[in-house]
Amino acid sequence: MDFKECFPIWDKLTKEQQDKISKAVVHRHIEKGTVLYNGLDCTGLLLIKSGQLRAYILSDEGREITLYRLLDGDMCLFSASCIMSSLQFTINIISEKDSDIWVIPPDVYKNLMENSAAVANYTNELMASRFSEVMWLIEQIMWKSLDKRLAAFLTQESNLENTTSLKTTHEIIANHLGSAREVVTRMLRYFQSEGIVKLTRGTVEILDLQKLKKLNS
Amino acid sequence: MDFKECFPIWDKLTKEQQDKISKAVVHRHIEKGTVLYNGLDCTGLLLIKSGQLRAYILSDEGREITLYRLLDGDMCLFSASCIMSSLQFTINIISEKDSDIWVIPPDVYKNLMENSAAVANYTNELMASRFSEVMWLIEQIMWKSLDKRLAAFLTQESNLENTTSLKTTHEIIANHLGSAREVVTRMLRYFQSEGIVKLTRGTVEILDLQKLKKLNS
Repeated sequence: MDFKECFPIWDKLTKEQQDKISKAVVHRHIEKGTVLYNGLDCTGLLLIKSGQLRAYILSDEGREITLYRLLDGDMCLFSASCIMSSLQFTINIISEKDSDIWVIPPDVYKNLMENSAAVANYTNELMASRFSEVMWLIEQIMWKSLDKRLAAFLTQESNLENTTSLKTTHEIIANHLGSAREVVTRMLRYFQSEGIVKLTRGTVEILDLQKLKKLNS
Repeated sequence: MDFKECFPIWDKLTKEQQDKISKAVVHRHIEKGTVLYNGLDCTGLLLIKSGQLRAYILSDEGREITLYRLLDGDMCLFSASCIMSSLQFTINIISEKDSDIWVIPPDVYKNLMENSAAVANYTNELMASRFSEVMWLIEQIMWKSLDKRLAAFLTQESNLENTTSLKTTHEIIANHLGSAREVVTRMLRYFQSEGIVKLTRGTVEILDLQKLKKLNS
């Protein structure tokens, strides 16, 4: 697949704009575990051809919480925070799988956006969609207990990886949920005692996906 | 002040667009305590001439947490969530003071935004600025203890009301912070024992604003 087939509003650009963005865009192959953005540089927008990226925030003490995932065809806007002066927060982006992405330089996109209502409105929809994910997260953090959040997370991971045998650690899960490892361990052991999961070193095996989904409903 | 003096990008509209929005906009005087938006109707964008609105979310059980405040000159975008299909969350808007606002009908604004890169980019900046406030809130919820959040809240209220004698209840404060009343009461009593505040019925009097600010730093 070419960039133009992946870029959602290609047809709404003028021929000139299409040429400009085509020439500027850079293809990158990213190994799993690469930090693509940490708020220091204005990397540009990332369009995911294939793979999986994770957006998260980091506390001063090194604690983490996952904001959302970016999958095939998704666009990452906040790695180009310099294109909007009101974007006053820092997120981090890391690849969770080997990924193929296109990087759109921030100045090129900013110029497009300023001159094209179509691009500006697409950007609005993009931001609204991330905003919705973050609002969902706030509601989870505020009103849901950890057992429900852990159940939702394990269900989601099982869908993403297409397996019930998750290669992960309690530490990694805690970083996704913004919780402490000890708390996650305790909850996982409770799930195990209820026959929902089986814990072995480096693996959480889901034994009863229905029960897990029910917990979160 | 007229609408055109308050609307931040008036000069970037064409004469025709100015006429259209001028004719469509509705002025409203709102009493303190009026719910302006609860996610059911698409009210339109709200431009605050004077007054104070509060944006908050509500759990199924009726718990609340304040997302941000809207003051003189601020524009409320999410009360017009129908203008963007990707805005998939509901906030509530209530007036905290008697307010004078303009309501811009959603269809009129949507039409403007679709045809004007300037309006679309202004909308982007608006959303980015609210997004930044919500990200700040997530960081507060995730990484800050309640004493720091309560200290920050009391300091902010004191600034907003321009007084150290806050007319409020423990219940109201709990609803701002997304906490339980009992927890807030306990923390306020601790502040009182430290000589930071004095509690009387319906009032929290700040005795030591410096100490309060230091707590939150």
